[in-house]
Amino acid sequence: MDYVTVKYTSKKPKLKDPILIEGLPGIGNVGKLAVEHLIETIKAKKFAELYCKDFPPQVFINTDGTVKLVNNEFYFWKAKKKNQHDLVLITGDYQGLSSQGQYELVEKILDISEEQGVKELYTLGGYGLGHDIEHPKVLCATTDKNLVKEMKKFGAVFKKNEPGGGIVGASGLLLGLGKNRGLKGACLMGETPGYLVDPKSAKAVLKILMKITNVTVNMSALEKKAKEIENIAHQLKEIEGINKDKSEELKYIG
Amino acid sequence: MDYVTVKYTSKKPKLKDPILIEGLPGIGNVGKLAVEHLIETIKAKKFAELYCKDFPPQVFINTDGTVKLVNNEFYFWKAKKKNQHDLVLITGDYQGLSSQGQYELVEKILDISEEQGVKELYTLGGYGLGHDIEHPKVLCATTDKNLVKEMKKFGAVFKKNEPGGGIVGASGLLLGLGKNRGLKGACLMGETPGYLVDPKSAKAVLKILMKITNVTVNMSALEKKAKEIENIAHQLKEIEGINKDKSEELKYIG
Amino acid sequence: MDYVTVKYTSKKPKLKDPILIEGLPGIGNVGKLAVEHLIETIKAKKFAELYCKDFPPQVFINTDGTVKLVNNEFYFWKAKKKNQHDLVLITGDYQGLSSQGQYELVEKILDISEEQGVKELYTLGGYGLGHDIEHPKVLCATTDKNLVKEMKKFGAVFKKNEPGGGIVGASGLLLGLGKNRGLKGACLMGETPGYLVDPKSAKAVLKILMKITNVTVNMSALEKKAKEIENIAHQLKEIEGINKDKSEELKYIG
Amino acid sequence: MDYVTVKYTSKKPKLKDPILIEGLPGIGNVGKLAVEHLIETIKAKKFAELYCKDFPPQVFINTDGTVKLVNNEFYFWKAKKKNQHDLVLITGDYQGLSSQGQYELVEKILDISEEQGVKELYTLGGYGLGHDIEHPKVLCATTDKNLVKEMKKFGAVFKKNEPGGGIVGASGLLLGLGKNRGLKGACLMGETPGYLVDPKSAKAVLKILMKITNVTVNMSALEKKAKEIENIAHQLKEIEGINKDKSEELKYIG
Repeated sequence: MDYVTVKYTSKKPKLKDPILIEGLPGIGNVGKLAVEHLIETIKAKKFAELYCKDFPPQVFINTDGTVKLVNNEFYFWKAKKKNQHDLVLITGDYQGLSSQGQYELVEKILDISEEQGVKELYTLGGYGLGHDIEHPKVLCATTDKNLVKEMKKFGAVFKKNEPGGGIVGASGLLLGLGKNRGLKGACLMGETPGYLVDPKSAKAVLKILMKITNVTVNMSALEKKAKEIENIAHQLKEIEGINKDKSEELKYIG
Repeated sequence: MDYVTVKYTSKKPKLKDPILIEGLPGIGNVGKLAVEHLIETIKAKKFAELYCKDFPPQVFINTDGTVKLVNNEFYFWKAKKKNQHDLVLITGDYQGLSSQGQYELVEKILDISEEQGVKELYTLGGYGLGHDIEHPKVLCATTDKNLVKEMKKFGAVFKKNEPGGGIVGASGLLLGLGKNRGLKGACLMGETPGYLVDPKSAKAVLKILMKITNVTVNMSALEKKAKEIENIAHQLKEIEGINKDKSEELKYIG
Repeated sequence: MDYVTVKYTSKKPKLKDPILIEGLPGIGNVGKLAVEHLIETIKAKKFAELYCKDFPPQVFINTDGTVKLVNNEFYFWKAKKKNQHDLVLITGDYQGLSSQGQYELVEKILDISEEQGVKELYTLGGYGLGHDIEHPKVLCATTDKNLVKEMKKFGAVFKKNEPGGGIVGASGLLLGLGKNRGLKGACLMGETPGYLVDPKSAKAVLKILMKITNVTVNMSALEKKAKEIENIAHQLKEIEGINKDKSEELKYIG
Repeated sequence: MDYVTVKYTSKKPKLKDPILIEGLPGIGNVGKLAVEHLIETIKAKKFAELYCKDFPPQVFINTDGTVKLVNNEFYFWKAKKKNQHDLVLITGDYQGLSSQGQYELVEKILDISEEQGVKELYTLGGYGLGHDIEHPKVLCATTDKNLVKEMKKFGAVFKKNEPGGGIVGASGLLLGLGKNRGLKGACLMGETPGYLVDPKSAKAVLKILMKITNVTVNMSALEKKAKEIENIAHQLKEIEGINKDKSEELKYIG
């Protein structure tokens, strides 16, 4: 096993001008939720797995009792209409733990994508606000100026100096290293409180992505998840409220 | 010295369809205790040592005043009965400190094991509960579905979403990387409070392993250790109790 | 992409006996501020970018909405007068995160510099005092004794046992590894409180550098920035003062 | 520059059956103090410097204002009497920061030593007690049983299970990796409170080393340093005492 190892789980797909969509774990798991929903809904097919010595030394346990070594996974989807592109999608359990691991993984993702003919890529993620947000906007950054205009047309938002720290992790690095290779693309960041996984923000991101790719996705599963998380968030706040009251009561006793 | 170095301490054994048993340090040291007890009781013989630049830069001091560079050690045992398999056993002082070290070590362990003909492996460990447990159960995860049934027959337990975080370290990685090589196997995790080394949990794990391997092991030494630890745990609780009382008393004084 | 990758963004300049000036992020960002001001004022031209797997996996977002992969950048400037030298200048977003990364980056910086004929180098940084300073002095350390005398003439200060911990990071390593290659040079460290970016200290450093290089630099932009920072520092102190008063008031209430 | 780089600063010495003595920074700096004192007193000559990418990226500033890249240094000394051995001595500014760095450095030290014909080595260090000690004993661990007897004769002490955690760092690793190469040797650990550099403990260690090597060393400089440290320790305790009194007084006021 190399530092990063690709394992093709089916024959390599032969794609035409595919677009790469990335959504790995991150703030609010926005990107991962969005891409996983996309994969399920459009029935994309897995064709490769990435293993890396910079992932945690860990297996997850499937519901049937078998183990799964943590990895990243590549899917593809073939265009159904003339105004669509073939898609390469990547999601996974982890990003690299170290800087070097992140660079190596993104380089490998770009290698595999370029081999499939990818020249354009969209990376999905969350932008943590630290407070609740009713209607999350989708912030954006791109590899070139022309794409800025295009993304604005689709409803993405550009704010000066936001995110202030730039974009950290695979979503940023794919754009940065991709740009150095002559690829073009954008990162779509859904606003999110950042405390819990955030399907509402994932939906906002997907809505823009649908316009970019002309792929229509049924959102009902994502909306159901968003409802569930909303309920959990509500309950957590009630508990917090009770605890706060109690601790205030205690002050009078103590 | 390579990043991971094998040093054969005797002629390479020639084994027939051996089963690999792993027990390295971890929660409650359950796996290490179990494999060490097994090695001593069945009189397995050491045949190789693993050194690794990702182990701590450390020597231990033997009771005779000489030093021992920290390592992992391979043992073997030849089957005595028709319904038994030859065994390869691995235990040691440490697991790798970094992700990469863990991956490299497990790859090397699998290389050496496959060279000996290993196609099946059992990894032993603890599952930390954070509270006392009278009768520790043995949780399990496997490389394939058929083994799930078999393991249940032997008394191992499968719980949905437990352990929630999957299996971290050599016990998980041996299954995960082994599965990618076409090996089959299971991880046996003895429930343990996790505060102290836990021979009682090690015994529970060994009981299942005995059924899997048809190797009968005298448990008395392990039971004696379990008694000793129980006494220590009892004393620790008494001291805690006293300290707690004192600190409560102090409140009235202060 | 190698561990450290050079990307020439223009034809390699052909310089005559150039002097290397380094200013990367550090305490008070003194070195970076100084070199960036120098680059802007003398209109030095970028000729290469350094990327490194030991930089954070991060892109910054430009004001036009496009991304920029974090890097270090090389500039050059051709001498205008007989008593001047050509200059190679390096600044950037980050230093390496790990020891190894720092060594690799500095080795590459020296490789590129030596290819341009560099035999002399000046590294700029801050010396954190932890308290305010009206007139920051510029401490110095050199590769050889003759330079000590020369630097003193230009107003740099040598204090026994200061900085006590030596010089950590690229500014120190460039001197240390450069000395091993037979290069000569000095590190100029502007005294700074170290809480905020410190253009005043950067100006003090540049004043010495101007004497060394016979390059005259207009300081007004740097002086303007220094004024702004002074105002911010003043406001921060007022807020601190208010908060301190409040917390003292609260003591009487509580 | 390689990960570990040797730079010979003079012609390679041609030594006869030399003994390696190591003393690098550690608890109480006992080993470093001892070897530095030995080098100065017997006028050993430097012949090589070790640089390593796992050392901090740092230069120290000499008293004359010049810089010195942090390193380890090799010295040699030729036997003056029949009952003495040539010596190779190593000391330095740092040990490796990471496990891998420690292993690489020690391997290189052994390579250079074996090239000089070293078959025997003594590593010097401190054993931290956490409390004051009037007459520090010198604990010991060896590569083989015969040496245990010999070391006892010279006054070194062997205690069961001490040091409990074995020996961490270069002093331990040189014995462990050296043993694997067929070298023999011992680690001498002077008892020390561990709070401050401890010349008294260094003297205790050197006294044993003198008997092992038949090299007589004037201890007066070390004894003077020990006196100075004793005074500092005394002053620190007085200040602590005063502060303790004050904080107790404050309790009555508050």
